[in-house]
Amino acid sequence: MDATEFRRRGKEMVDLIADYLENIEQRTVYPDVEPGYLRSLIPEEAPEEPDTYEDVVKDIERVIMPGVTHWHSPYFYAYFPTANSFPAMLADMLSGAIGCIGFSWAASPACTELETVMMDWLGKMLKLPEDFIAGTHGQGGGVIQGTASEATLVALLAARCRAVRMILASDPQRPETGITSKLVAYSSDQAHCSVERAGMIAGVRMKKIPTEQSDKYAVQGETLRRMIQEDKAAGLIPFYFCATLGTTPSCAFDHITELGHVSGPALYVSKIWMHIDAAYAGSSFICPEFRPLLNGIEFADSFNFNAHKWLLVNFDCSTMWVKKRSDLIGAFKMDPLYLKHDHQDVHSVCSTNPNPLIPLCLILSPTLPHPTAPSTSPYRTLSPPVPHTTSQHWQIPLGRRFRSLKMWFVFRMYGLKGLQDYIRKHVELAKEFESLVRADQRFEISADVVLGLVCFRLKGSNEVNETLLKRINNGRKIHLVPCLLSGQFVLRFALCARTTESRHIREAWQLITQLAEEVMQELPH
Amino acid sequence: MDATEFRRRGKEMVDLIADYLENIEQRTVYPDVEPGYLRSLIPEEAPEEPDTYEDVVKDIERVIMPGVTHWHSPYFYAYFPTANSFPAMLADMLSGAIGCIGFSWAASPACTELETVMMDWLGKMLKLPEDFIAGTHGQGGGVIQGTASEATLVALLAARCRAVRMILASDPQRPETGITSKLVAYSSDQAHCSVERAGMIAGVRMKKIPTEQSDKYAVQGETLRRMIQEDKAAGLIPFYFCATLGTTPSCAFDHITELGHVSGPALYVSKIWMHIDAAYAGSSFICPEFRPLLNGIEFADSFNFNAHKWLLVNFDCSTMWVKKRSDLIGAFKMDPLYLKHDHQDVHSVCSTNPNPLIPLCLILSPTLPHPTAPSTSPYRTLSPPVPHTTSQHWQIPLGRRFRSLKMWFVFRMYGLKGLQDYIRKHVELAKEFESLVRADQRFEISADVVLGLVCFRLKGSNEVNETLLKRINNGRKIHLVPCLLSGQFVLRFALCARTTESRHIREAWQLITQLAEEVMQELPH
Repeated sequence: MDATEFRRRGKEMVDLIADYLENIEQRTVYPDVEPGYLRSLIPEEAPEEPDTYEDVVKDIERVIMPGVTHWHSPYFYAYFPTANSFPAMLADMLSGAIGCIGFSWAASPACTELETVMMDWLGKMLKLPEDFIAGTHGQGGGVIQGTASEATLVALLAARCRAVRMILASDPQRPETGITSKLVAYSSDQAHCSVERAGMIAGVRMKKIPTEQSDKYAVQGETLRRMIQEDKAAGLIPFYFCATLGTTPSCAFDHITELGHVSGPALYVSKIWMHIDAAYAGSSFICPEFRPLLNGIEFADSFNFNAHKWLLVNFDCSTMWVKKRSDLIGAFKMDPLYLKHDHQDVHSVCSTNPNPLIPLCLILSPTLPHPTAPSTSPYRTLSPPVPHTTSQHWQIPLGRRFRSLKMWFVFRMYGLKGLQDYIRKHVELAKEFESLVRADQRFEISADVVLGLVCFRLKGSNEVNETLLKRINNGRKIHLVPCLLSGQFVLRFALCARTTESRHIREAWQLITQLAEEVMQELPH
Repeated sequence: MDATEFRRRGKEMVDLIADYLENIEQRTVYPDVEPGYLRSLIPEEAPEEPDTYEDVVKDIERVIMPGVTHWHSPYFYAYFPTANSFPAMLADMLSGAIGCIGFSWAASPACTELETVMMDWLGKMLKLPEDFIAGTHGQGGGVIQGTASEATLVALLAARCRAVRMILASDPQRPETGITSKLVAYSSDQAHCSVERAGMIAGVRMKKIPTEQSDKYAVQGETLRRMIQEDKAAGLIPFYFCATLGTTPSCAFDHITELGHVSGPALYVSKIWMHIDAAYAGSSFICPEFRPLLNGIEFADSFNFNAHKWLLVNFDCSTMWVKKRSDLIGAFKMDPLYLKHDHQDVHSVCSTNPNPLIPLCLILSPTLPHPTAPSTSPYRTLSPPVPHTTSQHWQIPLGRRFRSLKMWFVFRMYGLKGLQDYIRKHVELAKEFESLVRADQRFEISADVVLGLVCFRLKGSNEVNETLLKRINNGRKIHLVPCLLSGQFVLRFALCARTTESRHIREAWQLITQLAEEVMQELPH
């Protein structure tokens, strides 16, 4: 396919996409296929000779669409939203065409620089403390990660490195393995499963802090304080706490001011790193009325949310800020001798990196002179972190797309007001759904409705609610997923699609009540 | 922007992209900007009210393009290629519009299933042993990772988990920290820096195996064997070896058959996991004449290359296969009680996962009943891995785009033959460049030219070569990066753009020789 054919096929694809999104309501939101459905629909091997483009396009409806869960249907209320906007799609097309791999400033200066400035724009929209803004001289700043899971892990790795270094600084004779095996991290029992998984990857203990319905599933400062004290008494070293703003099950909010007072003070051998995961809720903080939920951010070392969830910037765009870039840079830094040579030898190619938050992959570094004796410790061999050198890796992948173009297009085409309107519309629709539930005596609301998520259930057994949900999803007209809150099976109704309107909410509610009636008639109470 | 406006703007963007790529030769390949250039060109904050689309588009030329390194210019010979093809761009547009997040089968069955089948297609194109093909009953299979760095890390984490479990199985009383602190991994001193970084992230020793110019920078079996023996004698536990096929500096190849005999036998307490990183070279193995470079793959536990480098599938698409899915699944698995409940409770929502290689994020799992007492060990609390259950996480991020659409479009629109032709054309052009260099007595070739990379230098000092490279890049007509091989400063000429032709090679060579003449006249020998 050459550029001439691409002009034609690209325009057809634009129409196909517009048709798909304009008519998405008419599709079954949740696909009716069995596992393994696709394999039998296509050949077992790639073709030797090219297929025609017409055949490929035909197969979109024949092979792909029957197995698609339509996340952007206004009848999709499962999980949390993922963004889908036209400006973001246009920017992504451009990003694909430029197709640079932004692992260093030199690899495409615009890619690194636009990201730094867009993260500042967004940080200002969120009214983040000055500490988190890179500006031209700040010590903090933002970077785009792929997902919140990556951000949680990166923060944990940086915290691990900082803790080990602080302890080694005060007690240089202490064996390192004796330190890492004593480290302990904390998160809410409501935290996303990726937080626990980050602990597994980093090889450190991760303790779950129990929460209660009566506390609205928020971690209590007193509980955290007690756990820390007990662990300290048992000889462990608390070093990391992941707070959640807007949990996955019920959109609960930890009180980070209270928790900051627990984790902040230098009562402990190593200061505790507070990371804030606001994956879903973070977008709402651009509205002044929701910004108080972020109060206490000044106690955090790092903060992350997924602009690709609720801020109209298509996946992936997980926005992360840190207060001190050097904390992160240090965690991924190599042997200083090796570094020194890198800097010296590739200076002409790589130049200076204006944003140390962007990983600068010196892909040629393995060939630079270094001692053949391996460094066996990532901690002892490190010099103190130096910002603005050429080797600041601090994300898991080294390659990266030109993702900030999506932020730039979206912020400019919506404007701050347009984005705020969008958030508010979803919250209003959630409130509307909440009032429909509350008006029906057979149902109950299971958690405060703060943003765009409504947790509700039939008054009665878990069984009746499980049956109801199964009936809803098997009907395939709307799609919801459940959660368990304090042992109760709960239905989650999350506002997801950009195009959801009041009529969709009412239609969904009508369907739910109709199915509830059937279920209640069938099942014994 | 609504669908109607998107139809118009999308078509304009298609033309903009086609114009950009058709005329890319006329742009300066390597941008002439200073660090920080972009910040002053745009406002300090996002606009309150929307900008016009015309203004946004105008800014592409005003703000972005001056800072872009044009990776797809036929004058770009730096790093390694990154893919850029029209079919991949069309597929990516569709992927963006569908915009599903494929963290589970249910979240979009087509996304999970097409990926499994496309990885089988590609595995067959590479003639991978049957062990690595998922098929309908295989124990192995493939998955798309974001980058080779992620694949290296995932393999390392799986190896760490397997080693600890094997040792615990034979010696249950042994303290775990005593195991992990003794683990030792190996890679070539020519390996990509991300391998060393994976060791830092996982918190294990990573030793570099020295290589020699006389061995063509390949790791020698004898060297690896000796290091393993010495480490064992010192009480360490060798558990992971990362072989490289096509190193970043000089495209050198480890002899994996020889190394497999070293790392394979169960001579050691824990079997050594062999991971093969063929990030760049892997694409060439679809040609029968290059496939022998992969001989010995049967000894590997995991294998990875970047289809997004040289196989015309736009970034990101890093293709990874494993022989035993259960090894990977186990590495990210949670507490079995918790798992059991997940499986039970969300079965109706998530159904069975036909491909355990695709991470199934039970985003609701944290709310399911589990003991509040935290599990402190990822190893002891695990039951033996069970394939085909609903909780097989095995990549770092949980969310994922519908990336297999790009593979599907590219494989079908090029056909296997078209892809082979493309690889062969680049190799031929590299050979042509090599012969130009060899015909000039002032220059020398620094490493065997096997695929699309030519390492060369002026006979003489490092200084003269550094000066030459600086002159080349400052001229901005072509773009190259250097490497050091055995202490010698070497210029790397990598075939990168899809549209590079013989005339570009000759033009580049003419420029290089002209600048070399200048440099040699200026500098004292």
